[in-house]
Amino acid sequence: MSDRYGQDRRGVLRTMVGATLGAGIAATAAAGPAAADPVTIPVPESAADGDRKRVEVAVLLYEGFTALDAVGPYEALCRVPGVRVTMVAAKAGLVRTDTGELGIAAAKSLRQMPRPDVLLIPGGGELGTTSSMSNTQVLDWIRRVHRHTIWTTSVCTGSLILGAAGLLRGVPATTYWASRPYLKEVGAIYTPGRFVEAGKIITAAGVSAGIDMGLHLAARLSNEQIGRAMELAVEYDPDPPFGTGNPDTADAETRALALKLIAGAAV
Amino acid sequence: MSDRYGQDRRGVLRTMVGATLGAGIAATAAAGPAAADPVTIPVPESAADGDRKRVEVAVLLYEGFTALDAVGPYEALCRVPGVRVTMVAAKAGLVRTDTGELGIAAAKSLRQMPRPDVLLIPGGGELGTTSSMSNTQVLDWIRRVHRHTIWTTSVCTGSLILGAAGLLRGVPATTYWASRPYLKEVGAIYTPGRFVEAGKIITAAGVSAGIDMGLHLAARLSNEQIGRAMELAVEYDPDPPFGTGNPDTADAETRALALKLIAGAAV
Repeated sequence: MSDRYGQDRRGVLRTMVGATLGAGIAATAAAGPAAADPVTIPVPESAADGDRKRVEVAVLLYEGFTALDAVGPYEALCRVPGVRVTMVAAKAGLVRTDTGELGIAAAKSLRQMPRPDVLLIPGGGELGTTSSMSNTQVLDWIRRVHRHTIWTTSVCTGSLILGAAGLLRGVPATTYWASRPYLKEVGAIYTPGRFVEAGKIITAAGVSAGIDMGLHLAARLSNEQIGRAMELAVEYDPDPPFGTGNPDTADAETRALALKLIAGAAV
Repeated sequence: MSDRYGQDRRGVLRTMVGATLGAGIAATAAAGPAAADPVTIPVPESAADGDRKRVEVAVLLYEGFTALDAVGPYEALCRVPGVRVTMVAAKAGLVRTDTGELGIAAAKSLRQMPRPDVLLIPGGGELGTTSSMSNTQVLDWIRRVHRHTIWTTSVCTGSLILGAAGLLRGVPATTYWASRPYLKEVGAIYTPGRFVEAGKIITAAGVSAGIDMGLHLAARLSNEQIGRAMELAVEYDPDPPFGTGNPDTADAETRALALKLIAGAAV
């Protein structure tokens, strides 16, 4: 695992890390030994202004996105030293999720975020996903942004939006379990896994898989030590109460009822 | 498992359920056999107007709460037939999370939600949690609401807020791993587990544990069949990339670094 993530260490910016973690000293002193290794963070190709540069992660919100698809990775990434996660949307402001009853704020418009280092596209309900798949403003922004990203990523049906932008032709990828048949329509090669890394594109499976991918990305953007610590920071020691979360092993009745419950909320 | 959740079936409201699931018929027809059993939903003690009554779940937001603590359970509960999940706060409007960089909307003020059937209190950063623990308006609302809830629940350090309201004296409970020592200060009895159910109080461990508790609660508010389907609906088949999410088995270096990373973001 060390090599797996070690290769992504792109530099060390002790000054910023010191500032970022400074607040933690008291807690750490009380908690025992400090981490042995210096914390490392990546220097993206677009880095220009030395140790004040942050890795900008843009999470693309759109009307009808699924809340956990965006917030799972957010929680895994927002405390990674040197990383800043920003919710963006066609227009800055409140964006409604697929239930229509929850709103999350986009801090910046797509225009205000022309060149993020990392792009993350959450999945959404059927209407939200298909609307984004045919929104030329959004697709053009995705294509422009992708040229310069370190990582271009998605959760759930977000991969179908990446696909609609033409970024998944011949690319191994995954998506929400019920939407797997749609991957081939955008030229992607369905590949099993909680997340699939192909070049600089990482696609995650449905909804909660964004947490697994987010922790993987946390390590990719820093090092394995940070990834391991973030997994503990969000106490990710899951114990699913029913053991029915895997569509390949779930019984037909559970699959049918799940499709009823998410009807109108997944492509 | 069937008995475990079966005992919580409080009634059947086929009319509403039919309406709720109506949109899913096409998807289900394409997906195979429909669920064999009728979907059941609970009738809370406060139910007054027949089959238009919904089970109201109030998620208490406050400045400095942790996003995933609230959104994990939201995603597990928002599609449960007959259940409505509403974000509430001292004042309706945008509430900032512990990073200060993310805002989620509270649809109603505490005054506008005087009697939810279920209360869910997410955890937060140190400042957000301690502020709520000393906010008499919030604590009074929690105590009033608790008298009539079917379930009173928390995620992460949210249990310390329940405790500050005086609801955990002598009650088995859990909290964020790094905050376990604080449970005894509010009279609670620390009990291991992703979530701990004691009477009508359910407390979850840190951050991501809210998903496990949310799925458990989905079944408690309906039946095991719905819980099993929601676990699949959010494709909750986790595969933590590092296996360091359990504080009792994580190495000292990972624990120390995690505390640095969450410093200022957990009590």
